Amino acid sequence: MDTIDITSYKVTKPVALKSVPTKDNFNSSKKVLEKQLKVTSKELAEFQDKLYAHGKYGVLVCLQGMDTAGKDSLIREVFKELNARGVVVHSFKVPTKLELRHDYLWRHYIALPERGKFSVFNRTHYENVLVTKVHPEYILGENLPDINSVEDVDDAFWEKRYRQINDFEKHITENGTLVFKFFLHLSKEEQRKRLLRRLDLPQKNWKFSPGDLAERELWEAYQNCYETAINKTSKEHAPWYIVPADNKKSARLIVASILLQTLKKYKDIKEPELDPEIKSNLKSYKEQLEKEA
Amino acid sequence: MDTIDITSYKVTKPVALKSVPTKDNFNSSKKVLEKQLKVTSKELAEFQDKLYAHGKYGVLVCLQGMDTAGKDSLIREVFKELNARGVVVHSFKVPTKLELRHDYLWRHYIALPERGKFSVFNRTHYENVLVTKVHPEYILGENLPDINSVEDVDDAFWEKRYRQINDFEKHITENGTLVFKFFLHLSKEEQRKRLLRRLDLPQKNWKFSPGDLAERELWEAYQNCYETAINKTSKEHAPWYIVPADNKKSARLIVASILLQTLKKYKDIKEPELDPEIKSNLKSYKEQLEKEA
Repeated sequence: MDTIDITSYKVTKPVALKSVPTKDNFNSSKKVLEKQLKVTSKELAEFQDKLYAHGKYGVLVCLQGMDTAGKDSLIREVFKELNARGVVVHSFKVPTKLELRHDYLWRHYIALPERGKFSVFNRTHYENVLVTKVHPEYILGENLPDINSVEDVDDAFWEKRYRQINDFEKHITENGTLVFKFFLHLSKEEQRKRLLRRLDLPQKNWKFSPGDLAERELWEAYQNCYETAINKTSKEHAPWYIVPADNKKSARLIVASILLQTLKKYKDIKEPELDPEIKSNLKSYKEQLEKEA
Repeated sequence: MDTIDITSYKVTKPVALKSVPTKDNFNSSKKVLEKQLKVTSKELAEFQDKLYAHGKYGVLVCLQGMDTAGKDSLIREVFKELNARGVVVHSFKVPTKLELRHDYLWRHYIALPERGKFSVFNRTHYENVLVTKVHPEYILGENLPDINSVEDVDDAFWEKRYRQINDFEKHITENGTLVFKFFLHLSKEEQRKRLLRRLDLPQKNWKFSPGDLAERELWEAYQNCYETAINKTSKEHAPWYIVPADNKKSARLIVASILLQTLKKYKDIKEPELDPEIKSNLKSYKEQLEKEA
């Protein structure tokens, strides 16, 4: 089993989404991909123990993608082998009234990972430059003082948001949060198939809403917003990875491999040394326990 | 009763704290100052109703000052006439273990005001460039990945923090939070008197801790850190005000006046217009209620 080459997925210069493949270039069977993911997830679990014991870094995993891109099942499979104690998943839906009474980053700030843990954002703060950019009327619901009509939501407004998001991510990475941003890149044709499956399979029906078709009509607008957001905010300290997502199994393996290979480069993340004094006395602690018997 | 001239307290260019007075230049009796504060606090309460009904801005009031500078009693008196529903006071103490497992701004971000409300920070995020700068060994307790010894806490580290704080405040002001930062400027001699009072009056004894005297020894170091922090972070959108604090009554009046006069300049803050359709039907709603009788 070869190691996945993760270099091609990272966005290091401006990209045109249209020219980035939605299909992987692997020649592996489903079974091989599944096995390889399991091995990778287990290694990630070993790393997790070190991360927790070390207690200095938190890991933020941001997942974005069009509807049906496979975010939910990816979370289930990639983190399958990890200890649930150290993985917190936050699925961000339409903002609540309480959330709207704060700035748009507030609900995400609260959910940032503790040192030693993973936070997975299922949809992220980027929705504030995606769904709201496709539907600028949503911005009116945020009750911003300067925004009185959709006309106020202009280019300068979006530029400010990209800058605010970059500043936010710079701050958290400088203070110990490792940030990974994944765009699950799906083709429009594959979405069609997956929506059809939701309609055909009774046990998947609940996932369907007529709104999905309305959003699908806006496919091009969404792709444009993704492209701009990715290009404006992919930074060395908080890079975007564009993951081909037409095949769910390879997408999961790519995400797990990017996490594992990148995290393992942090050589400082390891169990801390035991205090030398305690260490030199291990024998006497042992004797104390043995005497009890 | 004259209106207080608030212009002289705002920091618009670099200041040397030593040349800023700790005594007010008022010629008013205690009684007059008290009466004037009461009037100002009542006006602030009227403004609060508008702020709440308008629901687009939150107000963040940051209070900093040396020990005994009068922060607690100032909060009590300045906000006395306001509706407690819309004023939330957060007293930040030594960070808890949970707080230390996040970046240093996290506990403050959570406590930011909802739209329509006041948040008062009794000690603030600035302690991260004040008490921790005087005691750089405290930084080790934050478990930052890059900081392994006190030597790592260098000038570049502090410059980064000022920049992070500026970025944070820029973001929140751009999204509807109005930020006021007050430094209660106390003389060392006045602190001596107030500490003596804490020791002399049995009912004030609980406020005293031997640590207060140890911190007092570091007076000059604290003044230097305040001066640098104020000069690095006083911005038009989030200004610092240096308030002479040797007289508690005038300090309270100055803070209340700065809040009131500045906030009243936001002419957009007012009760929203009733929906025209509802308004045109007020008569019929009234008739409906009258018919019940």
